[in-house]
Amino acid sequence: MQHKTLIKVRGYHLDIYQHVNNARYLEFLEEARWGYLEDSGDIEWFAKHGLAWVIVNININYRVAATMGQTLEVFTRFSKIGSKSAVVSQEVRIAGTEAVAADAQVTFVCLDQKTGKAVPIEGELRERLSQHLSE
Amino acid sequence: MQHKTLIKVRGYHLDIYQHVNNARYLEFLEEARWGYLEDSGDIEWFAKHGLAWVIVNININYRVAATMGQTLEVFTRFSKIGSKSAVVSQEVRIAGTEAVAADAQVTFVCLDQKTGKAVPIEGELRERLSQHLSE
Amino acid sequence: MQHKTLIKVRGYHLDIYQHVNNARYLEFLEEARWGYLEDSGDIEWFAKHGLAWVIVNININYRVAATMGQTLEVFTRFSKIGSKSAVVSQEVRIAGTEAVAADAQVTFVCLDQKTGKAVPIEGELRERLSQHLSE
Amino acid sequence: MQHKTLIKVRGYHLDIYQHVNNARYLEFLEEARWGYLEDSGDIEWFAKHGLAWVIVNININYRVAATMGQTLEVFTRFSKIGSKSAVVSQEVRIAGTEAVAADAQVTFVCLDQKTGKAVPIEGELRERLSQHLSE
Repeated sequence: MQHKTLIKVRGYHLDIYQHVNNARYLEFLEEARWGYLEDSGDIEWFAKHGLAWVIVNININYRVAATMGQTLEVFTRFSKIGSKSAVVSQEVRIAGTEAVAADAQVTFVCLDQKTGKAVPIEGELRERLSQHLSE
Repeated sequence: MQHKTLIKVRGYHLDIYQHVNNARYLEFLEEARWGYLEDSGDIEWFAKHGLAWVIVNININYRVAATMGQTLEVFTRFSKIGSKSAVVSQEVRIAGTEAVAADAQVTFVCLDQKTGKAVPIEGELRERLSQHLSE
Repeated sequence: MQHKTLIKVRGYHLDIYQHVNNARYLEFLEEARWGYLEDSGDIEWFAKHGLAWVIVNININYRVAATMGQTLEVFTRFSKIGSKSAVVSQEVRIAGTEAVAADAQVTFVCLDQKTGKAVPIEGELRERLSQHLSE
Repeated sequence: MQHKTLIKVRGYHLDIYQHVNNARYLEFLEEARWGYLEDSGDIEWFAKHGLAWVIVNININYRVAATMGQTLEVFTRFSKIGSKSAVVSQEVRIAGTEAVAADAQVTFVCLDQKTGKAVPIEGELRERLSQHLSE
C-alpha cells in the first residue's frame, strides 16, 4: 500500500534560510506514518497487542528546498520486513512539480511495552506487517 | 526569587519573518520554568506529592523581535498565589540591550495526578509556593 | 467569516503529561490563521501591498486537555478592527464532543515591510480587514 | 576539534512514549552545530564569504531512549572533507552513564548565496574546513 499525506508549507515551518527546516521534515514524516497506521487499522492492532513502534534509524536525503505556500505530498510505504526490524520508505514531493524535497528510509523495531524489549518479527506480527508489502 | 535562563537564538528558532516564532517563545518560557523548578527543588517536591502543574492561561506580549545570534535572558518569578491558581511572571530580555522581546503572565493550577482534579492552594502546598514570593 | 481547520492529535504533539503541549497550540492557531488568510485571498493582497502581520499579544486559555487521536477543530474569525491593531478570535474544539480545548485572542498590527513600522488601519487596509467582520 | 553542547531534557521534548521525540534530536544536533560554528568563528567567516551550509543528508541512529531530567552531551566534530561535501559526526551521550542516546552523520554542501549553487570545496574554503579535522 502506498499512502499519501498532504502538508502545506507555512511560515512557522521555515528557518533562517526561508526553507523548511531539517528537523521539521521529521515531523512531516511522523505525521504521514501516523496517517498510514491509522488508515490501515494498525494503531488499534498494535495497541491491543501491547506493541509500540520504536525508530532505530532514519536516513534522510534533503534534495530540493521547499518554501512557503507549497503543498507537500508525503508518500509512505513499507519497503522491507526483516527478522528483527522493518523499513518504511517515505518520499516528500512538491505538488505540481517533478521535485522531490526529501526522501527517507525509516527503520523501526516492535517493542513489547511490558518488557521494554524488541520482539522478533514472526508469527502473527510478521503476517500483519507483511500485508503492507503486498498491498 | 528571580531566576534567569539564557537562550541563544539559532537558525531553527526563526520563521518566515526571520524573527523568533511566536510559538517558540512558549518553549523558551517552559524551558525557563523547568529551570526555576529544578533549581528550587520543586520538581522533586511536586512529584513526591503526586501533584502536576497545569497551565490554564498564558497572556504574552511580543514587544521587540529577536533575531539570529542574540542571547535572550528569560527572567522568571512567582507574582501571585491565589486560592485556586498561581501566576508566574516571565520576561524575555535581549542581552546587552534595553529591549524586552516578550513578557508573559502564566497562570496554572496544581493537579492531583490520582484524581485528575485541581486542588486548592492551601496548607503545605500554599507554604511551599509562598516561599517563592518572599525569596 | 468563520473558518475551520482540522488537526489530528499525533504522538509528537504530546508532552510529559500526555496532553498536547501548550506551545504546540500556538502552532495549531498559526496553521489555522494561514489557512484563513489563504482561503480569503489575504496572503496575496498583503504581499502585494508590502504588509506583514505581526503579533503583539496572544491571550490563550487552556481548558480541556487534548489527547492522542482526537481531532481538533480550530475556528478562526476576526473579532475587532481597531485604529492600530486588530484581533482574531480562535477556538480549538475537540470534535465529536462539547469540549473546548483552548480559546485565544490574537492581537496583531500590520507592518510596512519597507519601513519596519506598524501602519494605521485606515483606508484600503481598513476596508480589506473590515470585510472579515461582516462576512 | 571536538565540541560539547549540554542539553537538559524537559517535559516539552518528550512525546507519547515519554522519550525525547525523534524530530527533537535534529534540533539538538542543530543547536550543537551552531554552537560549534560560533565557537570556531565560522559563522562570521561563512557570512563574510556569502556561503551557507545546506544539509543534504542526515543518517541518525536512535540507540537508548532519553527521558525527563537527563542531561545530554552532544559531541560534534568534522569527520570528512570531500571535494563537494563535508561530514560532521555527532554523538548524543546521556551524562553520567555509558549510554549513547543517538549518533548521526550529517552531510552538507556549501552554497553560494548569490548563485544558489553548491561550490566545490577547494582553495580557501578547503583550508578553512580542514582546520577542523586537525584540531
